Order: sequence, then structure tokens, then C-alpha cells
Amino acid sequence: MPTSVPRIGIVGARGLVGSEALSILAQRGHPAKSVVGFGSSRSAGSRIDYGPTPIEIQHIDTIADHGLDYTILCADASVAHQVAELLQHQPATIIDNSSAFRMNPRVPLVVPEINADQLTEQSKLIANPNCSTIMMVRALDPLHREIGIRNITVTTYQAVSGAGRAGVDELHAQTHSHLNGIDQAPSLFPAGCAFNVFEHESLIDPATGFNGEETKMINETRRIWGIADLPVLPTCVRVPVERAHAQSIVADLQEPTTESLLREILSSYAIRTLEPGETLTPLDAAGGDDVIVGRIRVDPSSGGRRVLLWVCCDQIRKGAALNAIQILDQLKFKRCSSRAKKSTRPGKACAEEQNRKVLA
Amino acid sequence: MPTSVPRIGIVGARGLVGSEALSILAQRGHPAKSVVGFGSSRSAGSRIDYGPTPIEIQHIDTIADHGLDYTILCADASVAHQVAELLQHQPATIIDNSSAFRMNPRVPLVVPEINADQLTEQSKLIANPNCSTIMMVRALDPLHREIGIRNITVTTYQAVSGAGRAGVDELHAQTHSHLNGIDQAPSLFPAGCAFNVFEHESLIDPATGFNGEETKMINETRRIWGIADLPVLPTCVRVPVERAHAQSIVADLQEPTTESLLREILSSYAIRTLEPGETLTPLDAAGGDDVIVGRIRVDPSSGGRRVLLWVCCDQIRKGAALNAIQILDQLKFKRCSSRAKKSTRPGKACAEEQNRKVLA
Repeated sequence: MPTSVPRIGIVGARGLVGSEALSILAQRGHPAKSVVGFGSSRSAGSRIDYGPTPIEIQHIDTIADHGLDYTILCADASVAHQVAELLQHQPATIIDNSSAFRMNPRVPLVVPEINADQLTEQSKLIANPNCSTIMMVRALDPLHREIGIRNITVTTYQAVSGAGRAGVDELHAQTHSHLNGIDQAPSLFPAGCAFNVFEHESLIDPATGFNGEETKMINETRRIWGIADLPVLPTCVRVPVERAHAQSIVADLQEPTTESLLREILSSYAIRTLEPGETLTPLDAAGGDDVIVGRIRVDPSSGGRRVLLWVCCDQIRKGAALNAIQILDQLKFKRCSSRAKKSTRPGKACAEEQNRKVLA
Repeated sequence: MPTSVPRIGIVGARGLVGSEALSILAQRGHPAKSVVGFGSSRSAGSRIDYGPTPIEIQHIDTIADHGLDYTILCADASVAHQVAELLQHQPATIIDNSSAFRMNPRVPLVVPEINADQLTEQSKLIANPNCSTIMMVRALDPLHREIGIRNITVTTYQAVSGAGRAGVDELHAQTHSHLNGIDQAPSLFPAGCAFNVFEHESLIDPATGFNGEETKMINETRRIWGIADLPVLPTCVRVPVERAHAQSIVADLQEPTTESLLREILSSYAIRTLEPGETLTPLDAAGGDDVIVGRIRVDPSSGGRRVLLWVCCDQIRKGAALNAIQILDQLKFKRCSSRAKKSTRPGKACAEEQNRKVLA
């Protein structure tokens, strides 16, 4: 059982998502002695800053030796499988950012504002959805609950940092070269990313024509809402943006609505909305915690049933690191509540953790 | 009546569209002595290259004195109104790239591959549609004719050069600054354009929530196809791309279709399509004449009636300058055919012009 200050492991601590998770924990004052960063042989032994304190990266192979209560995996699917095996006889709860377990029916796939009810104090492995899925379902969930959604068409503008630091490096290098009159061949991406846009680099399924990112959005959205046949039509595109994704979403609703009703519903679910005429860009969302909705429109030819939203979100924070830590908050709270119920002084035990949880 | 080598005036000859029109005419070998470039007091008197030949920009106020057969307007709506007035008693036919006359029911709005039949030998003023409209209707027209279109949802990735040379200059300056750690305030655009995307800068209509670019796409598409209530749902977005637009188009068709049938139909209308798995980006379209269609998909949950296309096009060429010159070709051909019918040797008179026309 976790103590009141749990020991948290961050796997992939040097990556974009891992270092963001460390930064969120440090900002909240989670003590350095209760955090362990893990990496491959390449980074093990090196030091990274945790707030003002340097911490040493531990080798992933030693993860079972650190007495972890929670492990947040910020690495790829193969590392996730490896860590799950290493920790299978340990008490540590795993929250995985990779795609390894997202479609496993025994593993809850959680966006805390939407389906935290799938977490129990016994949950040992939880999957974090794909960043594009998280921001879309977070923006649409209020409409799904209050009005009902019949189908979704979404076109994305995805930052190159979705492909990690290497994506940002490729963007910077190619842009710099192009401005100096030289065009570099692409390395990480299937096409030049300087002053260009291109379909998401994940593999296209020849059977459907959808790429991997699009398939994730379809399957994960259906799973999170529990609607196996919900029509979801994504087109996922990379744009030369460093950080934060944008989405142009069109959804058909079960009932007619109005722009002001949509705004009211979104606000009542703590979604930040912009006033008509205010400009929203990925740069506005970068570095923040919010899924922000701008340009709320209702198709005049749809009898009020088709709505258009422009959504921006920092995909490294709410799309990955922050969502994982919010899952951890929920688990801590559930476990703390459970202990409190068994204690003679219910209420007091959870006060500290309740104060720390970030969910509205 | 135009002679066999007509005198062509290009208004806004120093602008991106005007200089592209000159470049197309020069590439085709249209003689320099039959081309006149016009500009405002700022550019009048300066010289620009027409192929190997420098030509001197004339002041727009003198346009009625040049014995023009055709005038291609590559300037804004106010200049278009001004030139139309200056030329109202002249024989010159005007082809206007601005929005000035696009919704005027007495002025044909023409994409030659679609509705050249609206041109007559008497046409004196013809409007060129907006670049985003041209590329979308050109890509969809084969499906509209062969299957029928019930509605269109489109999300755009529009190059900054749609806002002219100043747009490209702002992108370059802001990008250069950002790479050097300085963020410049936007000047032309409503938000920073370096490593960012933002809604199209045209004014939002408070009644509908659609911006000017989106409203053009709706109204012009309906007018070109003659379907006054066709549902068209655009979301127009600028991306940090120098040249060529991309569009993610979703259309509901009247009848079920398949990916291979779509490919066959598009090819039969001389639309270049990519094979499954081939990557298509705006960079691939830049500098070319084609509207190119990549990623042809059919929504599996739609019974074959909802299709998705990814379309790229050089918006300065087919979206503006080239489309205007193709209109000019059609007018020349119609007039030439008409003269030929009256001549004793029909057929021969038009041979040269037939050889020159660029339409398939």
C-alpha cells in the first residue's frame, strides 16, 4: 500500500514526456527522495534536475529494486511490456503512456475527467490514451453526456514534438537549412517538415487506409465511451509546430443545440472556451494544462445538430504527462479513502492528498 | 476582336499572382510586345523580367490607352472595381482574381474544367474563384458529376503566401527571430505565424461564425455548381507553409462508392491521384499546375457513401494565375471558333490557338 508520500518512478525520464512528468511533480513539491528517474543504458548514471535538486537516472533493469508505489511509463510499447514484466511481482502500480495496453480489456484506459470510475484501489496497470484522443474526448465528453454524439469527423494539426525531441530537432535543423537556401532530406519524418505539412508518420493500414494515429483515435474513443461502433473519422496531419496540437472537430449530435448552449455546457465541465472572435492557436495552449475550445460554430444547414469546434492542447502535458499524474492522483485518493473507511478517524487521513489532487 | 496574338494586360504585375501570370505567359512564348504589366504609382516605371526581356510597369491609370484585348486583374477588389470602370468603354475582356464580382449574377464564376460553358464570345468580365474554392471544386467535380455530392466538410492548411509577399516575409522574419530566441509580435496576421497555425485572418461574420475565406468557399461552390443550398462546412486555417495549400475534405455522396472507383473517376477527369501509401504534401504541389489528390479513403461506417480526400495545389498557379489564363484560353478559342465558322476555311484559323490551350 502506498504511504502518504508515495515513491514514484518515471521511466523515460530524459524524454519529453518523462521530463514533463518530473517537472509537474517537482512543481507540486513532491519530494526528490520519493522520485526515481529511469532510463536505458544510454542515460543511466547521468543526472537531471528535479526542481533545484539533481537526481541520478537509474537503469531500467533495476526498476524492481526501488520499492516504487507508482511507475509512470513514458517510453515506447516495447519498454512498457518489459517494465510490466519486471514489476509483475512488485506492488508498484503502472500508468503507461504507450500504446502497449490501451486495447487490453483488462486494462482501464482513462481520462480522469471522463472515466475515473474505471479505476479501483486494486488497479495495477492503467493505460493513458493517445494524446490526440485525450484532447478530443476531453473537449467532446460534455456534449456526449449532455446531448449525445452520433459521429465525429476530426482533422488534426499535430506538433512535431509528438515524435519526441528528435522531431523538434529535425524541424529546427530543416528550417534553419531552408532559410539558408539548403533543403535537407527528411530523416525521422516521411517528408520535409520545414514549411510543410504532411500526414502523420505512423503506418497506414492497407485494409482501411487509416494511419496508426487515426486508428488509435477511432479505437480509443470507442473504448473510453463504451460505444463499439461510434463513427469516428480522423485525418491526422503533422504541422511545423514545436509543441501543442490543434484539432478541427465536426460532430453530429443527437439533439439540436445552439452556440451559446454549447459554450455553457463546456464551461460547466471546466473546459476553457474562447469568446467569439478571440484567436486560439497551439502557441496559446503550449505549456498549459487546459484543453481549450475556440471557434464554436453550429452548421446552419444541420437544424442545429452539427457542431464545429477548434481545439488546442499541449499534447505533452494533458495529452500525456499530466493525464498520467491525474490518474495517479485518482488512485491515491481512492486508496486513501479506502484506508480512511477502515480507520477510526475517517476524513483526516485523506486531507493532505485531497489538497494535492489537481482535478476540478 | 482579339487578333491571333492578343494584347494581354496584367494588373498587379509585381504581386505574387501577377508575376506568376507573367511567368506562365512567358513560358508559353507569348511575345513580350503583346504583354503589358500594370501597377500602382509605387511600382509604375520600374522594370520586371518577362522571360529574358525586361518590361516596364505602366501606371494603372493609363490602362485604357494600351489597346488591350484581355486584362487579368491580380489585385484587390477595390482595384478591380477601378479597372472595370476605366475599361468599361474598351474592348478588353477582364478576368478578375479578386472577390469584387464573384457573386454578381451577371458575371460568370469559372473554373474552366468545370463550367467553361458559362463563357461566351461576348463575355466581357469573368470572375476567378477564390483559390481554396478552385482546388476543392476541381478535386470534387468528377465525384459531383459521376456520383453526386450531398455535402462537404473541409479543413484547410493554407500557405501564408495567400496573403501575398508580405505573408511570406512575415513567416520568414518571425521564424528567423524565433530560431534566435526572440519572438516578434505579429503584424499582418492575427497571431504569430512562426511554428504556429491559426484561423484564416479574414473577418469573422458574427451572424454565422464563419470567416471571410470560409464564406467564400461556401458561396462560390454553390454558385459554380448551381446548388443554392449545398451544405459546405469549411474551417480555414493558415499554416507556416510558404506556398501551396492542402485540404482535408470529407464528402457525403449520393451513391455508395469504393476507393478504386473514386481513383478511376478522378483519373478520367485528368486529376492526378497518388497510389495508396504515397505521401503528398504542399511542397509536392508547389510550382506545379495540378490539383493532386492523395489519401483516398471511404468511411467504413458509411455504407460507402462518405469519402475522404487529401488535396494539395499551388494556390498561386491553379488557384489564381493559371486558372485565369485557362479562362483566357477558353475565350480565345471560342472567339476563334466563331470567326472560323464565318470564314471560308473553318478549322485552320484555330489550329495555332488550339495547340496553345493548356486544358486537357
